[in-house]
Amino acid sequence: MPPVQLAGALADRRDVPLGDHCPIDRTLQVVGHRTSLLLLREVFYGARRFDALVKRTGMTEAVASQRLRGLVEAGLLTREPYREEGQRTRHEYVLTASGHAFLPVLVALIEWGQAHVPGARGELAISHADCGERVRLEVRCTAGHVVPEDELVVEGRRKL
Amino acid sequence: MPPVQLAGALADRRDVPLGDHCPIDRTLQVVGHRTSLLLLREVFYGARRFDALVKRTGMTEAVASQRLRGLVEAGLLTREPYREEGQRTRHEYVLTASGHAFLPVLVALIEWGQAHVPGARGELAISHADCGERVRLEVRCTAGHVVPEDELVVEGRRKL
Repeated sequence: MPPVQLAGALADRRDVPLGDHCPIDRTLQVVGHRTSLLLLREVFYGARRFDALVKRTGMTEAVASQRLRGLVEAGLLTREPYREEGQRTRHEYVLTASGHAFLPVLVALIEWGQAHVPGARGELAISHADCGERVRLEVRCTAGHVVPEDELVVEGRRKL
Repeated sequence: MPPVQLAGALADRRDVPLGDHCPIDRTLQVVGHRTSLLLLREVFYGARRFDALVKRTGMTEAVASQRLRGLVEAGLLTREPYREEGQRTRHEYVLTASGHAFLPVLVALIEWGQAHVPGARGELAISHADCGERVRLEVRCTAGHVVPEDELVVEGRRKL
């Protein structure tokens, strides 16, 4: 199977580095740390409070704090104040619309891991609550075709 | 919109860390460096040779070499020998079946970046070669339903 087809600025690119012209790289600059992705996972799994996020991910408070700040700055999480009886005001971390939109990346990582990392198979089952059927990612075009890799055209729209 | 629904070992988990029980984390342990993902991007874009991969990603030879070794060890790339007239034998990097299967992760990163990272919108257009229509990722169940986040059930299948 050949890799994807290229068009536009990517087709006649030679070995020019893409740098910030690549949305993959820009995304990774924002959320490219393993620890950031583990924190996002836990927010999707329902954790909101700093202490819970630290315990569930097993990272240090310093790292968690730095990554959460990055996720807030990048607009994936927002901080909402809460206050327990007799305590000072603290903050919970909540997904923004942009954070919710990140879910397919996590599903893609789960799918790949379960199929291709030794020992990971069968750890998670992802299903549709309404019908119980198994859920997976599909690469589809708006005409409804499932698109295999060798029919995928990636076009660079800006001059490199 | 609530986060995903949990079932099985994930539902009554409290704040137990998942560690290696999570395929996201296992995947990130293998390919979680930004530099690994940029190298994979370039192999999907058709680069095979070390020199081209270094130029296109703008990373040092030392980092590229280390990451490529990791991707080979993790089974996403394989090294194939080639030899140019009068030169010593070198190696090209080629996607394995497991490497090809990683494509949805990159498509997910592109999609999210273009929609949510300032300045990244419109850099790439992904389309279906056969019909020209725009391509995107869909989270679907095997019954054919597009599954929204709040209908997604993630079930932990192993005791934590």
